Amino acid sequence: MAFDAPGTRAEIEEGSRLTPHFGPDGLVTCVATDHATGDVLMVAHMNRESLARTVETGEAWYWSRSRGELWHKGATSGQIQTVLEMRVDCDQDAIWIKVRVAGDGGCCHTGRRSCFYRAVRRDGEGRPILALEEREPPP
Amino acid sequence: MAFDAPGTRAEIEEGSRLTPHFGPDGLVTCVATDHATGDVLMVAHMNRESLARTVETGEAWYWSRSRGELWHKGATSGQIQTVLEMRVDCDQDAIWIKVRVAGDGGCCHTGRRSCFYRAVRRDGEGRPILALEEREPPP
Repeated sequence: MAFDAPGTRAEIEEGSRLTPHFGPDGLVTCVATDHATGDVLMVAHMNRESLARTVETGEAWYWSRSRGELWHKGATSGQIQTVLEMRVDCDQDAIWIKVRVAGDGGCCHTGRRSCFYRAVRRDGEGRPILALEEREPPP
Repeated sequence: MAFDAPGTRAEIEEGSRLTPHFGPDGLVTCVATDHATGDVLMVAHMNRESLARTVETGEAWYWSRSRGELWHKGATSGQIQTVLEMRVDCDQDAIWIKVRVAGDGGCCHTGRRSCFYRAVRRDGEGRPILALEEREPPP
C-alpha cells in the first residue's frame, strides 16, 4: 500500500485522502488508547511501512526507534493490538488508534497495562514529583 | 523550574523524579485528551520551558514547531487548556495531559473540538479513505 504525497493545505486538512506527513526522520507519531477505558496506553512512531501494515492488517505495527526496526507489537509477547478505530489529525502527522490488547492485556515493557503509570504531582515546595498510580483493568 | 537530567534506567522508569528525556530537537511529545470524553484532542510538543510552565501554571504551554516559539494554548483564541491531570510515560519522553478547554471549547485550528476529526476507513478496493466524523460535544 502506497500513500500519495501531501497536496495543498485544503486537501490535507479537509480532503478524503490519507497523505501522511512523515517528519525528517520518516515517522509520524501514533497514540494508542484503550478502546474500553479511553486511557492512553502508549505513544510510539510509525514509518511508511508500519502505517501501511497497520491499515492492511488491522493490527498495530510501529517503528522501533531504539532497535531501528519494524515492530509488530505483541508478536513476541502476545500483546497484539487490534485496531478498532483509526483517526488522523488535521495536518496528518499524527495517528490515533483505539485498540483492544490481546494476551495478558499489557502494553508497557515494564509489564503495566499503560506506559503512563505515573502521575505528575507537586510536593510541598511546588516541585514536580511522580506518583505511581496505575489504573484498574476494565471490568 | 529546572528538571534534573535523567538517571539510571531504573530511576527513569520507577523513580519519583520527573526527569524528562527531551529529544535531539529539545522536545517531548504531549498528548492532550478531553477530561470528560477521553477523546484525544491534539498531539503537540513541549520543550523544557513549556513543560515547566505547564507544571507551574496548570495550563497547557506548548512549543510551536511551525512558528518556532513558546505557545500558551488559547492565549489569543480563549481556548485555554486547564490541566486536570498530567502523566508521564515509562521512558519520560511523552506527556499525557487531561484538560478542560475554555472559550468555545475548540482545540483545532480548523475550528473543531479535536484535531482528530477524520476516521481512516477503507474503500471497496481496500484503499484508505478519510471520513469526516466529528464527535458530539459532551453533555
